[in-house]
Amino acid sequence: MAEQTSDLMDRIVSLCKRRGFVFQSSEIYGGFSSCYDYGPLGVELKRNVKDAWWRAMVVQRDDVVGLDSAIIQHPEVWQSSGHLAGFADMLVDCKTCKGRFREDHLPDLDCPNKDKQFKGRKAAQCQQDGLMTDARAFNLMFKTFAGPMEDTSSTVYLRPETAQGIFTNFNNVVTSARMAPPFGIAQIGKSFRNEITPGNFVFRTREFEQMEMEFFCPPEDDEKWYEYWCDARFNWYVQNGVRKENLRMRPHASDELAHYSSGCTDVEYLYPFGWGELEGIAKRGSYDLDAHSKGSGKELSYFDEANKNRYVPHVVEPAAGCDRAAMTFLIDAYNEQEIGDGEKKEVRTVLHFHPRIAPITVAVLPLVKKAGMPERAREMQNSLMEVGMRTFYDQKGAIGRRYRRMDEVGTPYCVTIDGDTVEGDGTVTVRDRDSMAQDRVAFDEVVPFLLQKQREWKRPE
Amino acid sequence: MAEQTSDLMDRIVSLCKRRGFVFQSSEIYGGFSSCYDYGPLGVELKRNVKDAWWRAMVVQRDDVVGLDSAIIQHPEVWQSSGHLAGFADMLVDCKTCKGRFREDHLPDLDCPNKDKQFKGRKAAQCQQDGLMTDARAFNLMFKTFAGPMEDTSSTVYLRPETAQGIFTNFNNVVTSARMAPPFGIAQIGKSFRNEITPGNFVFRTREFEQMEMEFFCPPEDDEKWYEYWCDARFNWYVQNGVRKENLRMRPHASDELAHYSSGCTDVEYLYPFGWGELEGIAKRGSYDLDAHSKGSGKELSYFDEANKNRYVPHVVEPAAGCDRAAMTFLIDAYNEQEIGDGEKKEVRTVLHFHPRIAPITVAVLPLVKKAGMPERAREMQNSLMEVGMRTFYDQKGAIGRRYRRMDEVGTPYCVTIDGDTVEGDGTVTVRDRDSMAQDRVAFDEVVPFLLQKQREWKRPE
Repeated sequence: MAEQTSDLMDRIVSLCKRRGFVFQSSEIYGGFSSCYDYGPLGVELKRNVKDAWWRAMVVQRDDVVGLDSAIIQHPEVWQSSGHLAGFADMLVDCKTCKGRFREDHLPDLDCPNKDKQFKGRKAAQCQQDGLMTDARAFNLMFKTFAGPMEDTSSTVYLRPETAQGIFTNFNNVVTSARMAPPFGIAQIGKSFRNEITPGNFVFRTREFEQMEMEFFCPPEDDEKWYEYWCDARFNWYVQNGVRKENLRMRPHASDELAHYSSGCTDVEYLYPFGWGELEGIAKRGSYDLDAHSKGSGKELSYFDEANKNRYVPHVVEPAAGCDRAAMTFLIDAYNEQEIGDGEKKEVRTVLHFHPRIAPITVAVLPLVKKAGMPERAREMQNSLMEVGMRTFYDQKGAIGRRYRRMDEVGTPYCVTIDGDTVEGDGTVTVRDRDSMAQDRVAFDEVVPFLLQKQREWKRPE
Repeated sequence: MAEQTSDLMDRIVSLCKRRGFVFQSSEIYGGFSSCYDYGPLGVELKRNVKDAWWRAMVVQRDDVVGLDSAIIQHPEVWQSSGHLAGFADMLVDCKTCKGRFREDHLPDLDCPNKDKQFKGRKAAQCQQDGLMTDARAFNLMFKTFAGPMEDTSSTVYLRPETAQGIFTNFNNVVTSARMAPPFGIAQIGKSFRNEITPGNFVFRTREFEQMEMEFFCPPEDDEKWYEYWCDARFNWYVQNGVRKENLRMRPHASDELAHYSSGCTDVEYLYPFGWGELEGIAKRGSYDLDAHSKGSGKELSYFDEANKNRYVPHVVEPAAGCDRAAMTFLIDAYNEQEIGDGEKKEVRTVLHFHPRIAPITVAVLPLVKKAGMPERAREMQNSLMEVGMRTFYDQKGAIGRRYRRMDEVGTPYCVTIDGDTVEGDGTVTVRDRDSMAQDRVAFDEVVPFLLQKQREWKRPE
């Protein structure tokens, strides 16, 4: 079973590279430790995930506005937030080989020293024998220098989360956008964590993209909003095509919670390698606004005119990873399906993406590269693009092979232009990715036909 | 005149902060050197600029695909590209005050030393007197450390441009997306340059967002494609609402060109502070693919099956700044207009954004907060959102003031729901930002009416 699942993950990673979803970064230089680049289909997948999140969290709501804060901020931001003091792993150094390791990993680690006297020893044993230093805190923020000097006065950090840029702009947003609690500020952007042991494909990388929202509410309402956002975020994945049975909510035990948090729930997904965190929804209380208020000396609170009451709002934070979400949509969409029978039996690889998430919505395929078909196909492509559909034009190879190639990247619909389109009754073939059913549809009816199909789409079992 | 223009820039910067386009980053901590955060309206403006670019450069073209490569890449990428050796400013140190300065700025700089013996001296004179060191190269790439060690073996850089991630993925894209020259790879993303003297609001910042496209073509066709992209990029700004008379093309003189480049043209805009670069279109020849081919030992070329000919494609690169483009759209849209006459004379501030670029497309305004108007207004808002329009609901204050607030942030249309909508003939008022004309339109006709108006929009003189 373990072998089967790792095999499945291997096949998905291989598909990602072959079809241009995800490449290892700097591959021509031998790759670079857990860095990934998104190829032509991957970048569209990620764009769709971010757009779907932004639409649900900002565009379709009156009570949430967006923000885009800088990656490099004033260093005191991280002083106040507690990241400078507390955002750290405990590391030990090997006195012999000078390697550096996470202390909590030592029990599982063989001694990495190649010298034969250490052969077969466990790293933890080396530590007990005094061959390793005591543990010390290693901060996970990437450090760099702004300006021409390389010293402590110019040290700045790459943000380890987008959230703090939201808290520091609380007053600016309240004033300029005239928002009153309950309201939220949403942000999508890159964050950086100098993980000692990144891994698991795009699931744990040093550079990653977050989709975070801080929802500010009267203190007495935070439990209500916490429950609201737990439901809303679970449903968002389902509405975008993830199967319910592969999702679960896991409330954190009290010993897992940060000292300021009174509740946190993870949305977990059943990955090929087991249940894993997809998103966290946390009650943060007034911790962040209080911390920045104290650190900056600026009042960060809200004055409720109606009740003549000034208070520091409490915060509920749904924090999702964009790379992780994109890959989860892909894994959940992945299917190897036996079709046909007898000699025609074959396995097709298909991604059952929600039409909103699929990198390509419609492929337009002239049956052959002549007889006026390419021209009509281009016309079709233009009218599909006009209503915002992501199209792909392909005129090479047998039609069956072209359908399979579109199945493999999760294109929900193919429109084939043939002799009947040009010289017959003017219809085209609309081929459905999930059912493989083919309908004949009048040329001018294709756009409304597909818009309707998109709205009615359901994840096949 | 100089005073007037700097005053104009001040008023624009002030509008940006007041209405939530751009805030100084970490403002509660006193701000941080030339870092900016985009507020609720600024983030939508930037999203629209990026979407318009992506639509024109990727979605609506069969010959360009997208990419999203990592910010932190293998350090050898910057070795091969020449950035490690050559991407530098010449700096001098003052031996007395330990300050560090750009050598080319010394002639304009007073000696910054506060000691009275230096009073009134020029920095250049201090250098001649031997009080400053000789100049040495200071690399503009931000440097940081990946992994637990802080030494040369773990030194990595924040990319100073997105382009190199495109070149290193050339083979991956050709293979996975089956592209053949002429074709392009487009990318939007953050880049970082440790400028010694950033400034001019969001026009020169250390962290910025680029929109770059590398177009690969047969060597003999590069002049043709260079001219094509110069035209296309100029027109993109015009199509998105920038007035032609404020734009010009400036071909670089031969002594401005990089050694590998045989031509470069800037799209320039007439800013309140003078003509400035908005975008550059450059012929880069085969320099980049050659450099990475040499550095990595991997062949980066294309085999033309039809002519049995292997060659290294030449590159034409249109490289635009997203922050700069967003601010240019805003500056060009800005207008202070005298309206009314006699005692009713007043000045209205209005942003004449293209409807595609405006952060809000339609404001929905119930005339009063009762009598069924809010309910009908919400219905209207929903039908506008369904066709992808960005809406804003506002029920507070006098209707004239609400129109002015929408003018100031460039909302092209307001839809007002009044007594006649609810109990009369069922029509609403559609108010046009540019002409201030008001039309009565049947409730159900508003969506097609506005879609039509959007298509026909023209920048007023």
